[in-house]
Amino acid sequence: MQKVMLASDYEEGAHPNIIRRMEETNMVSMPGYGTDEICSSAKERIRKACGCPEAEVEFLIGGTQTNTTVIDAFLASYQGVIAADSGHVNVHEAGAIEFGGHKVLPIKGSYGKITSDQVEQYLKDFYADGNWEHMVMPGMVYISQPTEFGTLYSKEELTAISRVCHAYKIPLFVDGARLAYALASPANDVTLQDLAQLCDVFYIGGTKCGALFGEAVVIPDPHRIPHFFTIIKQHGALLAKGWLLGIQFDELFKDNLYLHIGENAIRLAGRIKEALKEGGYPLFMDSPTNQIFFVIDNKKMAELGEHAAYAYMEKKDDDHTVIRFATSWATTEEAVERVCRILKN
Amino acid sequence: MQKVMLASDYEEGAHPNIIRRMEETNMVSMPGYGTDEICSSAKERIRKACGCPEAEVEFLIGGTQTNTTVIDAFLASYQGVIAADSGHVNVHEAGAIEFGGHKVLPIKGSYGKITSDQVEQYLKDFYADGNWEHMVMPGMVYISQPTEFGTLYSKEELTAISRVCHAYKIPLFVDGARLAYALASPANDVTLQDLAQLCDVFYIGGTKCGALFGEAVVIPDPHRIPHFFTIIKQHGALLAKGWLLGIQFDELFKDNLYLHIGENAIRLAGRIKEALKEGGYPLFMDSPTNQIFFVIDNKKMAELGEHAAYAYMEKKDDDHTVIRFATSWATTEEAVERVCRILKN
Amino acid sequence: MQKVMLASDYEEGAHPNIIRRMEETNMVSMPGYGTDEICSSAKERIRKACGCPEAEVEFLIGGTQTNTTVIDAFLASYQGVIAADSGHVNVHEAGAIEFGGHKVLPIKGSYGKITSDQVEQYLKDFYADGNWEHMVMPGMVYISQPTEFGTLYSKEELTAISRVCHAYKIPLFVDGARLAYALASPANDVTLQDLAQLCDVFYIGGTKCGALFGEAVVIPDPHRIPHFFTIIKQHGALLAKGWLLGIQFDELFKDNLYLHIGENAIRLAGRIKEALKEGGYPLFMDSPTNQIFFVIDNKKMAELGEHAAYAYMEKKDDDHTVIRFATSWATTEEAVERVCRILKN
Amino acid sequence: MQKVMLASDYEEGAHPNIIRRMEETNMVSMPGYGTDEICSSAKERIRKACGCPEAEVEFLIGGTQTNTTVIDAFLASYQGVIAADSGHVNVHEAGAIEFGGHKVLPIKGSYGKITSDQVEQYLKDFYADGNWEHMVMPGMVYISQPTEFGTLYSKEELTAISRVCHAYKIPLFVDGARLAYALASPANDVTLQDLAQLCDVFYIGGTKCGALFGEAVVIPDPHRIPHFFTIIKQHGALLAKGWLLGIQFDELFKDNLYLHIGENAIRLAGRIKEALKEGGYPLFMDSPTNQIFFVIDNKKMAELGEHAAYAYMEKKDDDHTVIRFATSWATTEEAVERVCRILKN
Repeated sequence: MQKVMLASDYEEGAHPNIIRRMEETNMVSMPGYGTDEICSSAKERIRKACGCPEAEVEFLIGGTQTNTTVIDAFLASYQGVIAADSGHVNVHEAGAIEFGGHKVLPIKGSYGKITSDQVEQYLKDFYADGNWEHMVMPGMVYISQPTEFGTLYSKEELTAISRVCHAYKIPLFVDGARLAYALASPANDVTLQDLAQLCDVFYIGGTKCGALFGEAVVIPDPHRIPHFFTIIKQHGALLAKGWLLGIQFDELFKDNLYLHIGENAIRLAGRIKEALKEGGYPLFMDSPTNQIFFVIDNKKMAELGEHAAYAYMEKKDDDHTVIRFATSWATTEEAVERVCRILKN
Repeated sequence: MQKVMLASDYEEGAHPNIIRRMEETNMVSMPGYGTDEICSSAKERIRKACGCPEAEVEFLIGGTQTNTTVIDAFLASYQGVIAADSGHVNVHEAGAIEFGGHKVLPIKGSYGKITSDQVEQYLKDFYADGNWEHMVMPGMVYISQPTEFGTLYSKEELTAISRVCHAYKIPLFVDGARLAYALASPANDVTLQDLAQLCDVFYIGGTKCGALFGEAVVIPDPHRIPHFFTIIKQHGALLAKGWLLGIQFDELFKDNLYLHIGENAIRLAGRIKEALKEGGYPLFMDSPTNQIFFVIDNKKMAELGEHAAYAYMEKKDDDHTVIRFATSWATTEEAVERVCRILKN
Repeated sequence: MQKVMLASDYEEGAHPNIIRRMEETNMVSMPGYGTDEICSSAKERIRKACGCPEAEVEFLIGGTQTNTTVIDAFLASYQGVIAADSGHVNVHEAGAIEFGGHKVLPIKGSYGKITSDQVEQYLKDFYADGNWEHMVMPGMVYISQPTEFGTLYSKEELTAISRVCHAYKIPLFVDGARLAYALASPANDVTLQDLAQLCDVFYIGGTKCGALFGEAVVIPDPHRIPHFFTIIKQHGALLAKGWLLGIQFDELFKDNLYLHIGENAIRLAGRIKEALKEGGYPLFMDSPTNQIFFVIDNKKMAELGEHAAYAYMEKKDDDHTVIRFATSWATTEEAVERVCRILKN
Repeated sequence: MQKVMLASDYEEGAHPNIIRRMEETNMVSMPGYGTDEICSSAKERIRKACGCPEAEVEFLIGGTQTNTTVIDAFLASYQGVIAADSGHVNVHEAGAIEFGGHKVLPIKGSYGKITSDQVEQYLKDFYADGNWEHMVMPGMVYISQPTEFGTLYSKEELTAISRVCHAYKIPLFVDGARLAYALASPANDVTLQDLAQLCDVFYIGGTKCGALFGEAVVIPDPHRIPHFFTIIKQHGALLAKGWLLGIQFDELFKDNLYLHIGENAIRLAGRIKEALKEGGYPLFMDSPTNQIFFVIDNKKMAELGEHAAYAYMEKKDDDHTVIRFATSWATTEEAVERVCRILKN
């Protein structure tokens, strides 16, 4: 019997609509590099969903690639990007941001989140330092919605960060690799339209949210980055058969699918949290989205490991460990029931 | 009626076997980043086909990305890469190589090819120059098989270049973005095994040769690049759902499919060449693979353009233009017949 | 009356011997780029003083330039450099390290110093993380002697860090921009020979220690970096009239001048510390070298500011500030007396 | 007897006025990083000499460093710089431009010069190419005055290039590493004021023109590059004791010294050319400045080499070689007479 795969949310294929569309269009010739009609349709749907009819929308392939391409496009050569210390760009991109010549300027986050006050203080301190011209000028704020810990920024929090950014004339970038799980969470009050209004650039995650791969970058002001296409190419991030990205986002934004595709994950994450509660497992922290971080006895962890894949986070003490489950749009009830039985056992 | 799409060889989907396998495996959970069993199987098939059982094989997504990742992995920080002036890395990668900090050192090619003598002369002259320590040290030779012009290196030519490289202790890298069309050409005498013996690294193109996307990098000596995985990640070139690449190369290397998948293109390119001959169109140059470069009267070109997509190459004179057709594994007889009728008309 | 300049230790010209030698040799023609005999002599003196007769010695112009050139030379393209969070490379080089593509991996320092235990823990944790291949691999340890806070590593501490580095096969780099002030401190027990034995690369600061400019990089194993000359050129760090650097280090290493040139600064820093004690100013921290960090009442600071230049460090509270004095090889007794009178007043 | 040093024009010290001023100010404390009054004075003199009272003037240390810093400051991250194939940035900077992420886009020069027609054609062809968004966008034109071959652009030629640049909205950058030898040549009709009017940025060479080191970058529009200081620091190009650069340019621009300092070199180059003519040595090409390229019999070259240092250029045929002499502001009559005697012998 195969293990229940809950180690991450990129361990399944794509929504069946996507696969069907790929099959249907497989032998149709199309022009390359995203100049096809399916891409145009997908971009138009995204503009509509975000309420920004003029926006530049570009499709890239994966998260690290998107982060580094966007950051390189928006920063001047001598600027760095402010991020939570736990931010993906600071920890898990093998130095892709530095490869592009930019420093990540870390702020101590709280379960993945940073506050507008912290950002403001950072910027104030920076320009108060007599040596600031010898230092890396902050040129952007990067946050994730949801964060690495599955936590969410409220509309109020996001608005406050946006205000600070614009007061200091630096862009705000929201990494939405798992955005569908934010949009599907009852705890969320930030819509796609809010993102388009508050950010200078954000991306809508496909890879973890129902696509085989793909991230849709949205730049509400279409004149902001004059040659973004060339920058994408320069980063090796341009897909020859661009319509494959078009197909995926066209399907994800048909009939509001993207707004709901994360609901399954949220519901099943809730089930697991109930089971953890019943089983007396302390949560490491509470997340309103599809990631569940909890503390487990090492012996129990070994037993669990025979039946389910999880992600190791950190050692809690000699006998306990913090681990993570991530549900997804494709996680099944059966799989979750099986895991819950083991947890409660 | 849709135009016949012969502008390039990446304008079709994937071989039906690939689509079928994607469909079958779509709802099977798999571990990410190429650690799955399908990738292992695909790598094993490639190692066997290349006769290098120890080789490191890694799957990347597209050509520019692969070129820049491989070049950055093999070069020291102060080295450059020798290439034909028409080479993809020198012309059509939006500066991706320079983005990685390396200079392309161009040699004047003849229809895309450079000779071992030219390479040797370049290296000899370089070290004879009293100022060489102030210059960019050549650290690799990059060639394509087939080249941008569809021409082929013979085994003898490749062996000679390989000898020069190894005499100067620099690696030889073969870009095989269109490799299937070399392997399927009657004019070709370079096998996959030859590449594995003569090169330090090469890649087997998927995007243009039957896959949706994907290039398989082969490094015959598996100890050559210690942390290639991290380098791939740093370049934003690591696909989360790595098994999608595994599926494609596993299918392409089942039953020698890759060795034959280009034959259709070669055969149909032959038909077009016959039609061109009959119609009295001068060939710009003769290519033994799937690309056909020829001279056309501008009036005729306008007529052709209503029925077929082609690639513009250069102005020949005020009344004539050089254009290119590229057939592919998926080009149909009907499409080619339609084009031939127009040409001969 | 001119202000007493104690804001930093690069605010004076050069030792008179250097100026005299420059004058004497001014109209003598010499070959460029450090290929002259004065450079040879200077390098030989440094090798002797460091007890490493085979070492590669190269002269660069300034500190940031030297740090970035050395770090780029020693790191693989995907590696980062471990440093104290307060380290010059992390804070005051305007992103020069990231410009070269490398991440600075900060460790929380204590008054500028990091411990061998911290480094070991960092490395242990790194390789224990299941995701380390997605992260920036630590490829070097960078420390300063003295540190940004004027503190010193003892021989025991340095030996322990060196052992950890070598256990993990990564180089240890010591930034000696102010090395003369370490060597002249009674609290110091680390000699030039110790540095040559314990480090893989270090530099002997000229700019702040008696030269007009210049830093001497010492690489005890001369085969370690094959084309360091080219790397220097690539970084724009090669001085055409290289003999100017040769002259300075030849003079600084004649008759052990470099070993004693910092003594004046240490002695006068002691005087200032006494005056601070008498005046009841709390030290921010105690430094055994030429930098004095102390807390001062804002009103007094304003008065002091009319007579002396100091460096602002940070706000202590609404009424107090932390400031720094730096004495140098050229600071005069008179200047220090003048400042002491104001402080005690 | 020491050889006559005519291999290059950076083999002598500095103009005596500079050395005297260094001596006089050696023990005067000054604030760092070019914030001193001598720098202010020097910048003011340069602004006056160039007729651009608002210009930003910054002092850097050497040519390669200046080229890479200026190019990185002016180019967008995806742009390249057009230059003659023989240009210093293309050949002799060890890849410093590529290290900054930019491609050099070479145009075939004629003895170091490129024409406005060539530049215009390049730009026209670029944007006519259907694939230009996949290519490196030209973002600057770089030329040298005088060129690597000592040739000069006339005011008419420079104006024409400037017009093309501005029509295409890209900046024109003039490398003036040897500018004093242009200004002193009777063949020259381009003044400092012309440069300030026609270029977006240029630099006035110190290293080869009477200074120990130093290049003065002039940006006529002071708002053009918002944080040039930080960019200089990031490139490791900021001299701590900035007043050393101030002293040199203050002296060079006192009483129009810079306008005349090259005259000695031009006069003595004339003498050598006469001797070559008398001796029957064919000139490789005629240069109106301080460099003399000529063909010499290999046997004679060996004899010459015992008495004089020259620069090797290229092999002419089995028996002849092209070599170069470069006179300088400091070359003596005696030295030239000695060389002439040998040549005519």
